[in-house]
Amino acid sequence: MYKIRILSLGKTKEAWLQTALNEYLKRLKATVTIEFVLTKTNHQLEDLAMKEKGFICLDPQGQSLNSQEFSDFLLQKLEERDSRLTFVIGGAEGLSNNLKREQTLISLSSMTFTHQLTRLILVEQIYRAFEISKGSHYHK
Amino acid sequence: MYKIRILSLGKTKEAWLQTALNEYLKRLKATVTIEFVLTKTNHQLEDLAMKEKGFICLDPQGQSLNSQEFSDFLLQKLEERDSRLTFVIGGAEGLSNNLKREQTLISLSSMTFTHQLTRLILVEQIYRAFEISKGSHYHK
Repeated sequence: MYKIRILSLGKTKEAWLQTALNEYLKRLKATVTIEFVLTKTNHQLEDLAMKEKGFICLDPQGQSLNSQEFSDFLLQKLEERDSRLTFVIGGAEGLSNNLKREQTLISLSSMTFTHQLTRLILVEQIYRAFEISKGSHYHK
Repeated sequence: MYKIRILSLGKTKEAWLQTALNEYLKRLKATVTIEFVLTKTNHQLEDLAMKEKGFICLDPQGQSLNSQEFSDFLLQKLEERDSRLTFVIGGAEGLSNNLKREQTLISLSSMTFTHQLTRLILVEQIYRAFEISKGSHYHK
């Protein structure tokens, strides 16, 4: 069983977002548990991230991967890190350089999204990553 | 008043998606009307697209823009095309080369998303584009 934590800024829990996320969490539950940790400030987010042994930053400056590459990346990182992985989604100002140093940076898009949408895209890509690795028809 | 049509494959209307889209449509209604046209097959999608004078294809092979560039692009296209614009979202196999020829291709991400998520991202970016052009704080 894999465990993925997603640290993100986020004051609100929109009902539509919860419904959409739950759909993917339900489909993933036999394979991976996803835990969301929402913080009120960037400062809190960075404090929490610093306590992690290592994490993946979602950052506009990060490497742009397609879904197949993200699938390979995700499975490889989970392998390397004992089936546990943490993603950190920065706020609109991005994460501090201090925090990003020595971490892996990936980018979902060159566009800026709301943190709500970013969470949903990330979870959908995680689901897609496992479907790709299983060779299912979801991504076709 | 601007008018934007979004042509997309899509058999289902998830309630969460409708709620999320409605939030942006409500915020945009003083500026732009967005009309969604959903088709059941790629063939129907291409037939409808062919009837448009010109349209923007969302395609993995398209140009990757950041949100500021998309804002400039959107406003310029609306200016050129008499305040009306059509976007076509291809299915997983993408749109045929015949259809894409002579059209403008842009890419939201190098990743593949579901058509539901693509619609939401596009509408959020359209809202963001107008906020950027107004100099609001939404995108900060």
